[in-house]
Amino acid sequence: MLNFTFSHPTQLVFGLDTINRVGELSKTLGNKILLHYGQSSIKKSGLYDKVMTSLTEAGIEVVELGGVVANPVFSLVLEGIKLCKEEQIEGILAVGGGSVMDSAKAIAAGVYVEDDYWNYFMHRGDVPNALPLGIVSTLPATGSETSPSSVITNEAVEHKRSINSKKILPKFSIVDPKLHVTLPAYQTACGISDIMSHLIERYFTHTTHVDYTDRLLEASFHTLLVNGPLLMKDPNNLDARSEVAFVSLVAHNGLLGGGREEDWASHRIEHELSNYYNIAHGAGLAIIMPAWMRYVYKENPARFEQFARRVFKIDYAFDQQEQTIVAGIDAYEKFLSDLYLPTSLTEAGILEDNFEQMTDNALINRGETVGNFKKLNKQDIINIYRLSK
Amino acid sequence: MLNFTFSHPTQLVFGLDTINRVGELSKTLGNKILLHYGQSSIKKSGLYDKVMTSLTEAGIEVVELGGVVANPVFSLVLEGIKLCKEEQIEGILAVGGGSVMDSAKAIAAGVYVEDDYWNYFMHRGDVPNALPLGIVSTLPATGSETSPSSVITNEAVEHKRSINSKKILPKFSIVDPKLHVTLPAYQTACGISDIMSHLIERYFTHTTHVDYTDRLLEASFHTLLVNGPLLMKDPNNLDARSEVAFVSLVAHNGLLGGGREEDWASHRIEHELSNYYNIAHGAGLAIIMPAWMRYVYKENPARFEQFARRVFKIDYAFDQQEQTIVAGIDAYEKFLSDLYLPTSLTEAGILEDNFEQMTDNALINRGETVGNFKKLNKQDIINIYRLSK
Repeated sequence: MLNFTFSHPTQLVFGLDTINRVGELSKTLGNKILLHYGQSSIKKSGLYDKVMTSLTEAGIEVVELGGVVANPVFSLVLEGIKLCKEEQIEGILAVGGGSVMDSAKAIAAGVYVEDDYWNYFMHRGDVPNALPLGIVSTLPATGSETSPSSVITNEAVEHKRSINSKKILPKFSIVDPKLHVTLPAYQTACGISDIMSHLIERYFTHTTHVDYTDRLLEASFHTLLVNGPLLMKDPNNLDARSEVAFVSLVAHNGLLGGGREEDWASHRIEHELSNYYNIAHGAGLAIIMPAWMRYVYKENPARFEQFARRVFKIDYAFDQQEQTIVAGIDAYEKFLSDLYLPTSLTEAGILEDNFEQMTDNALINRGETVGNFKKLNKQDIINIYRLSK
Repeated sequence: MLNFTFSHPTQLVFGLDTINRVGELSKTLGNKILLHYGQSSIKKSGLYDKVMTSLTEAGIEVVELGGVVANPVFSLVLEGIKLCKEEQIEGILAVGGGSVMDSAKAIAAGVYVEDDYWNYFMHRGDVPNALPLGIVSTLPATGSETSPSSVITNEAVEHKRSINSKKILPKFSIVDPKLHVTLPAYQTACGISDIMSHLIERYFTHTTHVDYTDRLLEASFHTLLVNGPLLMKDPNNLDARSEVAFVSLVAHNGLLGGGREEDWASHRIEHELSNYYNIAHGAGLAIIMPAWMRYVYKENPARFEQFARRVFKIDYAFDQQEQTIVAGIDAYEKFLSDLYLPTSLTEAGILEDNFEQMTDNALINRGETVGNFKKLNKQDIINIYRLSK
């Protein structure tokens, strides 16, 4: 086990009808807030009205900025920053999925940046400060609800990059599983794929003696394996919605990576997929992750065997390690297919080959390789894209 | 699943040699701090010298108060409060196990109390404020490292009671498993029993659809079942020390109880054992917990069957529920015995019978019953004491 630190300052407010507390909680952000959201879905579902009523009852003045898209863009972030300055906004409330949360975080920090803001995304130091931020999560997926990260796409330069700072940690996050029942099945599935990936990027490590976090990760996998398919059968199953939402929050709050070297190559490789083809992040991960697994498992077969045996209960004889490993990866791919996700580029309708250019992009400012489980150089990344065809 | 909130503001600093950061971290508490500790063990082990050197190098002025005993007493808390006021202490550093941490928390809050402080322990409202507190943990057990609780024994009135407040949450907690290798086997075992109990008090619930926290709790049980016995064989096994210490922190930080009705009857019942006979809390729990299990399992056999099958892998036929349950409880009792803990009052050398008076004490200010899994009235509690003979 490696040394680590852990804290979770965000107040998580979890459960059915917790949305009704949004006014009371937002009052702690300030008296004049920016309400940040995405497209029309929160208006159709009635969530927008519910939030506005609660904010108004709490005596909060609201300025609005909607229009966040999947893979949120830097131009809207800049627009939000300008609006916050003009309107002397005191805090930001993000109502939406990971894209809206990340866009709100980027705006919150950008208000205090005097120089070229995109430099911070290209890893040039911590942001100076941020407006206080609250979240109402409508999609369990990214774990952005309690994370210090914001991933933004700069359309002008075709880069997708992140800032990471304690200063953009939300003060509170409301996770009300009732808000998730209106999600289309595809978005629910993409969320589950993303959560699985957050677990996988931590599970596959060379760090030894990580017994406890192994078991916590396996508990998280099992919960998704049971509850994910239940949601494909019945999107109104609030018990299963609650379980999936709970896992999404723990999967990415830092605890499960405590003491482990993590990987994150697959996320880097996927980011270029969504950057180039505007495919949902979770769908992109469903395509990349099995290919990554098949490409790297020989680096540490025992760990892949543990994944197969403990997570997918593959029970071949113990002198059949390779067959066990492959059966485990096959089982994961089947789990994704059963959620109606594409597990190859072809299935996603992506027939072009921009692999070389995507790989160059993935490596910019990251040196010669990405990842830790296997340090992937340019040729490795191209090979994984090819394997995912 | 029930609604819940979760946050973990304490900065956990975990790993080998993290003790070397104590000066740097304590500087965030203030320039003049109270160093609070127990008996002679930290001087014998060299920890005292190491801490003093680090604090001095950080330019911190140190006032000392040692002498904390197992089941920490209110008289020393009052002495600490007086000392803090006289010396104009700015923060407190607790170096020790749960007793020292709890004593330090009580002192930190007591400095700001003007009226009768013991009233707050008898549940008369939140404390007004507290000095900032840091912790160096020498014994993984109580989870007090990241909890908002302090349990204190008032010798004058023979009561053991707690205060609970976010204001006494530590700012940081250093958990360095190297500091645990000098623990006597008995203290290590008592710690493990205490951690198991924190899991058990959450596991046995009537709340349904708590799939994820069930699995996280089971992951925690399994880690202790594997690593506890390793420490009995080799107290210097740093990998096993790390695993046990990690579980102790997660077991009681609030996450694993998220969305569940918890119980805590066994803790209440045990507190009177340690109050009357000054037995270690973990040993008292090893005596009470199996008796409690045997007394209450009929309230929810399915949950006890799950415990037997999932935690202890009892694999009787499914029409043998009762035998499965009893085998699970037996297995837990054997696990405790294998740690050389007493699992009955007789084994602990307690032959007197103060059960009636102890029960009256346990119920004071708590109404007619304790616990949730089965609401235990006076006669139930006496029965459990008898069953633990």
